[in-house]
Amino acid sequence: MSKPLILVTNDDGITSRGIRKLVELMQQLGEVIVVAPDSPQSGMGHAITVGDTLRIYPTDIFPGLDAYKCSGTPADCVKMAKYHVLADRTPDLVVSGINHGSNTSISVLYSGTMSAAIEAAIENMPAIGFSLCDYTHGADMSHLDEHILKVAKEALSKDMGHNVALNVNMPAIRNESIKGIKICRQANAKWQENFDKRIDPYGREYFWMTGNFENHDKGEDNDEWAIANNYISVVPCQFDMTAYHAISQLNDEWDL
Amino acid sequence: MSKPLILVTNDDGITSRGIRKLVELMQQLGEVIVVAPDSPQSGMGHAITVGDTLRIYPTDIFPGLDAYKCSGTPADCVKMAKYHVLADRTPDLVVSGINHGSNTSISVLYSGTMSAAIEAAIENMPAIGFSLCDYTHGADMSHLDEHILKVAKEALSKDMGHNVALNVNMPAIRNESIKGIKICRQANAKWQENFDKRIDPYGREYFWMTGNFENHDKGEDNDEWAIANNYISVVPCQFDMTAYHAISQLNDEWDL
Repeated sequence: MSKPLILVTNDDGITSRGIRKLVELMQQLGEVIVVAPDSPQSGMGHAITVGDTLRIYPTDIFPGLDAYKCSGTPADCVKMAKYHVLADRTPDLVVSGINHGSNTSISVLYSGTMSAAIEAAIENMPAIGFSLCDYTHGADMSHLDEHILKVAKEALSKDMGHNVALNVNMPAIRNESIKGIKICRQANAKWQENFDKRIDPYGREYFWMTGNFENHDKGEDNDEWAIANNYISVVPCQFDMTAYHAISQLNDEWDL
Repeated sequence: MSKPLILVTNDDGITSRGIRKLVELMQQLGEVIVVAPDSPQSGMGHAITVGDTLRIYPTDIFPGLDAYKCSGTPADCVKMAKYHVLADRTPDLVVSGINHGSNTSISVLYSGTMSAAIEAAIENMPAIGFSLCDYTHGADMSHLDEHILKVAKEALSKDMGHNVALNVNMPAIRNESIKGIKICRQANAKWQENFDKRIDPYGREYFWMTGNFENHDKGEDNDEWAIANNYISVVPCQFDMTAYHAISQLNDEWDL
């Protein structure tokens, strides 16, 4: 039996600690190929490069591995991997991350990590985005191995559903404190933004966007609840944005 | 009765023809404020600016109007409009566009036009993204007025549902040929990509991403069908990415 082919990407860029950890772990499970952004792409959402050119070059930063750095977004990386780098081979699994920071709730929309996974789901390749709920540069990742391997092994051996990608968030706590893995829905929360005004050396205004996360979701079946209660959250994601509940309302009440 | 407040944005940039048309039309319906990107932002998906600064400056390109050009993405523009420019006022309607090109089906994920509308929906402001299915620079927009006004008037007078944004696509055909407006779901289609390799003057490879749109959706209730059959499509969109159908499958069949 041939080894499964696993495509690894991320949004923090190919030199980040998170992708290095993910590559190491995936090498235990299969043949790994890396196509990842050549620069940080946090918050890129599902951006793709249109009206501009793309570059992709081999890199030897992962000894012995087929790895490429790409000038594009995380979604571009998945497209280039599928249609250019791999061409006639299809990955058995696409993993993205490990993201340095949480991608729970509404952050799934802004997340480059998850856009790569969702782009893979569009291509109907099983995909997982892994995020550690810790933004600090030197965040401890030593406790993540067994959990990441467990989810990835299941993804390689079982069906996650057609056109589905998993959004896995892991709490930044000691391994002994992790209570387990919970399948969740996306919490209904959002960011309350604040724009921090500064003046540049030339006397002109600029702003830093800073936000407070506001969670009004009282459910115990969502990813925010899971993380707050020391579980790893797994949200299966899809990409049909249709608000089906609104279709009959618009048909019945609107005069179009 | 005071006039409704309408925020106008887009992704093609504040100098594009589409936003000028949309501003003119919205001035017939209410008080208009413009916060739009200072440069083209096509394909930006739901990207936001993190780890970098934002600029916003007033502009007089819309005589008599309160208008601002912003260095950020379409989603940034909506955030800056709500939390910085407007602060204590809330728009009665947010409109984005008119996009130069289709945003049907899966393109909703890549679209900056729709990310602005969806960002507004996250803030629970009624929102509409308008797109004309014609990429050409000088595309005829003369036939769009009555249809855009009709949808916007309904949005100002009736409920579109909580946290919903409308994705409106208009076929590039003569007005007499437009059969009407159809409420639709997002078609299940995708882009088959191709990377067109070139060599730059310095001897290095670069690529243009080009794609063929592949529609395997046989339904007659989706936006692709509507456009192909000379209807204007209206897809109500939401931002919960959860694949609810996959939750029980994962709980039953996976060992996590």
